[in-house]
Amino acid sequence: MKHYRKELWFETKQRRQLINITSIVQECLRESMVMEGLLLCNAMHITASVFINDDEPGLHNDFELWLEKLAPEKPHSQYRHNGYEDNADAHLKRTIMGREVVVAITAGKLDLGPWEQIFYGEFDGMRKKRVLVKIIGE
Amino acid sequence: MKHYRKELWFETKQRRQLINITSIVQECLRESMVMEGLLLCNAMHITASVFINDDEPGLHNDFELWLEKLAPEKPHSQYRHNGYEDNADAHLKRTIMGREVVVAITAGKLDLGPWEQIFYGEFDGMRKKRVLVKIIGE
Amino acid sequence: MKHYRKELWFETKQRRQLINITSIVQECLRESMVMEGLLLCNAMHITASVFINDDEPGLHNDFELWLEKLAPEKPHSQYRHNGYEDNADAHLKRTIMGREVVVAITAGKLDLGPWEQIFYGEFDGMRKKRVLVKIIGE
Repeated sequence: MKHYRKELWFETKQRRQLINITSIVQECLRESMVMEGLLLCNAMHITASVFINDDEPGLHNDFELWLEKLAPEKPHSQYRHNGYEDNADAHLKRTIMGREVVVAITAGKLDLGPWEQIFYGEFDGMRKKRVLVKIIGE
Repeated sequence: MKHYRKELWFETKQRRQLINITSIVQECLRESMVMEGLLLCNAMHITASVFINDDEPGLHNDFELWLEKLAPEKPHSQYRHNGYEDNADAHLKRTIMGREVVVAITAGKLDLGPWEQIFYGEFDGMRKKRVLVKIIGE
Repeated sequence: MKHYRKELWFETKQRRQLINITSIVQECLRESMVMEGLLLCNAMHITASVFINDDEPGLHNDFELWLEKLAPEKPHSQYRHNGYEDNADAHLKRTIMGREVVVAITAGKLDLGPWEQIFYGEFDGMRKKRVLVKIIGE
C-alpha cells in the first residue's frame, strides 16, 4: 500500500471565501503515484470546509446569502461561543458545508463527475489555515 | 489491495425523489470480492446526494418539506445561479443531505447499523445521472 | 493491509448530548497498530452523528439552539414520521451534523488539526446506541 500526505496552506483576503482547489489536489495525486485508492481532503480547522460543488459565481453568491440566512454572523452577541471570539457563525456554516470529501482514485485520476470541483470554504479567514490531503492505495 | 469501481445510473420520474440503493451497493460489494475495507458511494452530480437514513415514507415526506423550508425551489428568481438553469435549490438541498457516504466492509458485508439504509437523493431529476461506487480492501 | 473494527457503546442521560470521543478513538488506533491509513468513525444509528468540531461549552450550547431552530423537536405532530415514534427531529438534526468522519492516520496518530476533536452527537438518547470505528492501512 502506498500512502501520501500533504498540507495545503491558505490565507484568504476576506472573512468568507471559496477557493477552487481541484488542480492543487490533482497535483498531490500525481506526486503520490497512486493509481487506485481513496483520497481524503479535509479542513484542519473547525471554521472552514472542504466540499464539492459547481464552480459558478452565481451559485457561490447564493451559498453566501443562504449560509448567512441559516447561520448569520451578526449580531455576534447571539452566540455563547462569542466573547473572546466572534466566529461562532463560522463553526455553524462549516457544519452545513462539511469538513471533508473522500474522492475515488481510478487509473491515476480523481474520479469526479463532469461538474464536480473541490473547494476550500473559508468562513473565518484573513489568517493562515490548513487543508490536509491524505491518499492511500497502490 | 483489491479495488473495484462501478457507476450506477438513475433517471427519476420526479424532480425530487429518494431511492433506496442498499441492495445494489451490496451487489457491488459481492462482485468486488473484498472482505475487509472501505466502500465509498458518492453522487457524481452536484444536485444529487448519497446519504444514509431510515427507509420510512413518513420520514421521507418530512425530508421533502424540511428541505423545501431550508432551501425552497421557488421563486426560481431568488437565486443568482438560476437563469439558464433553475436548479440552484437542488445544489443547496444536496449540500444539507451530503455528497457521499463511506461504509465499513467487515467479513464481506456492509457494516451497517440495524436501520441504516443507503439512499440516492435526487433533487433535480428527470434525466440520467450517475452514482459512483469505489471499494478498496482485501 | 491491516484492518481493525470496534463498536463503541453510549447511553446518554439526556435526549440530546454531545460527547468528546477523541481519546477513545485514539485508543482504538493504538490497538489497531496501523501507522498509515484511514479511520472511519460513524454513528450506527440514524438519529445520532459523529462529527468534528471544537470542545467548547459555549459552542455546544449554540449548536443546541441552532439545531432546535432549524429542526425543532416540538410539536411532535409537525412530522409525519412521528406517531409511534417522536424522533423525526433527531433524523433531521443528525443530517445537518453528519453521520461520519474520515480521519487520516499518519505515523500512528490521528492526523487532526490543532482544535479538531471528534464528537458523538446524540439527538434521541437515553438508550444504548453504537458507534463504529473501522481502520484500514499498514
